[in-house]
Amino acid sequence: MLRKAFMIVVLLWGASATAAAADLSPINLPPPDTKGGRPLMQCLNDRKTDRSFAPRKLAPEILSNLLWAAAGINRPEKKGRTAPTAHNRQEIDVYVAMEEGLYLYAPESHSLRGVVKKDLRADTVHLFQPSRGSIANAPVQLIYVADYAKMGLASSEADKHFYAVADTGFISQNVYLYCASEGLATGVRAYFDKDALAKSVKLRDKQKVILVQAVGYAQ
Amino acid sequence: MLRKAFMIVVLLWGASATAAAADLSPINLPPPDTKGGRPLMQCLNDRKTDRSFAPRKLAPEILSNLLWAAAGINRPEKKGRTAPTAHNRQEIDVYVAMEEGLYLYAPESHSLRGVVKKDLRADTVHLFQPSRGSIANAPVQLIYVADYAKMGLASSEADKHFYAVADTGFISQNVYLYCASEGLATGVRAYFDKDALAKSVKLRDKQKVILVQAVGYAQ
Repeated sequence: MLRKAFMIVVLLWGASATAAAADLSPINLPPPDTKGGRPLMQCLNDRKTDRSFAPRKLAPEILSNLLWAAAGINRPEKKGRTAPTAHNRQEIDVYVAMEEGLYLYAPESHSLRGVVKKDLRADTVHLFQPSRGSIANAPVQLIYVADYAKMGLASSEADKHFYAVADTGFISQNVYLYCASEGLATGVRAYFDKDALAKSVKLRDKQKVILVQAVGYAQ
Repeated sequence: MLRKAFMIVVLLWGASATAAAADLSPINLPPPDTKGGRPLMQCLNDRKTDRSFAPRKLAPEILSNLLWAAAGINRPEKKGRTAPTAHNRQEIDVYVAMEEGLYLYAPESHSLRGVVKKDLRADTVHLFQPSRGSIANAPVQLIYVADYAKMGLASSEADKHFYAVADTGFISQNVYLYCASEGLATGVRAYFDKDALAKSVKLRDKQKVILVQAVGYAQ
């Protein structure tokens, strides 16, 4: 009897989780522009942190280019990415918090998978973060999450953490330079409630939020 | 007597250290190109790790642009850099190991200060590193060193380490993209004898080597 009840609970839980994700339709991003942008040295010259965001949403083309720049596939034959990872483990996932809900960027299909149909952007901003109000305005919060399960048994926990943080830095700098190229505002943050955010993003045990980066138009 | 002898030893040691650095003349780099390079999305499309280095040296203009791209000053009025650092502490120094010796990149003067008149490139490559021979060929090994003394008392040691690693990732990705723009080979490594390297680079107590990145022409 108990076992049967447990089965029903499990089935209901599974069904509701699937329903929640199904509620949020996936987004097929337009193909990224892999040729354009401003000259690299100009992008480096304009690279800066700017946390004064206007609430205006990003156009689909901009979102597409932004995510491809961050962690897209640039060598399809070997699934190579725009940013390196230690031992090519590709352990960093880019979650995208927008007004409509939380998505996961899928580089293989260059699309966004629905995760949670809820605006979680405010959850990425710490209560005591300076310029909290303006940061919460940003239409997009990129949440960089490391999947320690992808990092193998050979590495120590300290090494995994080291790799996860460095590999996130590579991705985040791609975003900085893309924003410099497009005149967008962006700023990375390490200061948020990691446990609370992991919960709202529904992370698995071995997943850890490393950094969060806001992207939008400057105020 | 003992005290006098100690003073002499200290003076001699100081004099020889100064002489060693003086032996290695500083290098005034040509002004960096802050306008050119290939379009950003093409650089991202060509971003890859390539550790097959030819021994050919980098031209002074290339070395200048490489270092400015990595960690140069792009907003002189506020000493802003091409890569962000947590709380703008700018705690990452870029050391440059070349055949002539070891230099420290000085962003303010965009020049290289002599540190050790000795070819330390082989010291950056671990004995068991795959493709060790080819990596040791590279004309330039960038050694990213964090100065924990610059990171203030408010941060825990774990936080300082986190920031140092992320901040190194930002810089390293600038180098990857500059190399993609110029068709240079590059590869970052976390695998080397950190203690031995810290000794040959003559680091202070609070300085730690985070990553090493080889740059050169592809074989």
